[in-house]
Amino acid sequence: MWIGDDAAVLGEQGGSLLLTTDLTVAGVHADLGVMGLDDLGWRAFVAAVSDIAAMGGVPCHALVGVAGPPSTDLDLLYEGIGSAAEAHGCPVVGGDLSTAWQVVVSVTVTGRSDGPAPPVLRSGASPGDFLLVTGALGASAAGLCVLRERGLGRARAGGDAEAALVAAHVRPRARLKEGVTARRAGATAMIDISDGLVADLGHLAEASGVGFALEDVPVTVGARADEALGGGEDYELVMAVPDPDRVVAAFADAGFGAPIPIGVCTDDPALRTLRGVSLPTVGFEHRWE
Amino acid sequence: MWIGDDAAVLGEQGGSLLLTTDLTVAGVHADLGVMGLDDLGWRAFVAAVSDIAAMGGVPCHALVGVAGPPSTDLDLLYEGIGSAAEAHGCPVVGGDLSTAWQVVVSVTVTGRSDGPAPPVLRSGASPGDFLLVTGALGASAAGLCVLRERGLGRARAGGDAEAALVAAHVRPRARLKEGVTARRAGATAMIDISDGLVADLGHLAEASGVGFALEDVPVTVGARADEALGGGEDYELVMAVPDPDRVVAAFADAGFGAPIPIGVCTDDPALRTLRGVSLPTVGFEHRWE
Repeated sequence: MWIGDDAAVLGEQGGSLLLTTDLTVAGVHADLGVMGLDDLGWRAFVAAVSDIAAMGGVPCHALVGVAGPPSTDLDLLYEGIGSAAEAHGCPVVGGDLSTAWQVVVSVTVTGRSDGPAPPVLRSGASPGDFLLVTGALGASAAGLCVLRERGLGRARAGGDAEAALVAAHVRPRARLKEGVTARRAGATAMIDISDGLVADLGHLAEASGVGFALEDVPVTVGARADEALGGGEDYELVMAVPDPDRVVAAFADAGFGAPIPIGVCTDDPALRTLRGVSLPTVGFEHRWE
Repeated sequence: MWIGDDAAVLGEQGGSLLLTTDLTVAGVHADLGVMGLDDLGWRAFVAAVSDIAAMGGVPCHALVGVAGPPSTDLDLLYEGIGSAAEAHGCPVVGGDLSTAWQVVVSVTVTGRSDGPAPPVLRSGASPGDFLLVTGALGASAAGLCVLRERGLGRARAGGDAEAALVAAHVRPRARLKEGVTARRAGATAMIDISDGLVADLGHLAEASGVGFALEDVPVTVGARADEALGGGEDYELVMAVPDPDRVVAAFADAGFGAPIPIGVCTDDPALRTLRGVSLPTVGFEHRWE
């Protein structure tokens, strides 16, 4: 019934209009036992705007629907949504409000891809393309562990490393500028890591009809390897590129940390390996199926 | 935090982009005891696309987010959403899916206003403008009564009049063509009747800084006067027009039933009357506040 990419791409005069919508449900995507409603609001916004990053797009406007029990602290929720909107340069221009048993936030974001390079789909990777990620992985999953062990207040007051993990979980950032830079530098396929590297790279590989052979996956300091492979919501971007030197140079020019090579795309769609060992297709289980 | 019109209006090259989002929650906006999930899906779609009608816009694309318990019959829900999308000429191009305790459907619709006439806001009415509605009111509220008394199967099998009331409740239509015609014919303000005539006309009057004096409100056959005044979800449009003859002629040219005069806008914003008697500000209580 709908297009299976991060965002829908609609041809328009003067460029492509990108459209994406994302639901965040309390207790499913955000544990209100360890974070505030402002954090939930921030995370809901980032989950949506990150889909625009994954296309190499520039976000334009957002719409926010909020459903929840009448006792919900809407001011706190909107504060988090508004802060995320400001941080990502994407104003909220409309919305809706309803009662419901549980807090559910829907965020819709429109975007554009400027210049001649078209939006980057999941489906453009070819065998031989190199795979790169925009940063180390596992911080969000590790941050959630810290939160569940220590609680939000104590975790934030902990050491810098713990605080960074917690921040990665409760206040993630969409890699918008990195996405635009990758698109302009010739990325052939891209996806944001919301469900976990193996799961999301699996989506990219499936859409492109390729397999993948990973060699090194960068793990955030303080996170475990399984959190880097299977933990979701880091919102780093993973991309396929024919010419990694060009992407590395473009990132250096833009002042970002260098994208990290993790492996290559293969011509056998059934091949999904890490250092030669088959990977199970597992991900962060917050989706329906 | 956001613009208080039916849809946000965003200036673009070659016309205005309209954006609106709407939440439909089972048990709040749709009683699953008397209708199917397909009906809920249809109604969710219409609630959103009707906001485009209220601006005089032409719908372009829709995004649909669905949250619900794992046992939810998604095929049935999507069947209703898809039928409504087809009936309103507005394809679904993306979406999201999540688990939740309760069925919540978010529908986002984009639209455009073609030609030189700008989108019709709520805020453009002036004292002396005539008020017109696109049809008789109260059918949806009366249809819900029939459903609760008789159940969906028996109500549909009942007489034509009952079946029409039930259809108005479970399968309402957005007045898209009527909205475009009204915009082109010089409507100064417009809103769709989702919360009830008195409540929605109150929103228009408040945004425009006018009052209103109603004389005749057309009541659907089989509905009560209070259902016509306070019942929601008829999705007829109510508009303010300086020149009703022009609008009536435009509707006749387009082949629609004539819009029905119901009163005038007044210069005292505190005045809200029906045949000289003050109207309480009441509406369909499915919104939060």
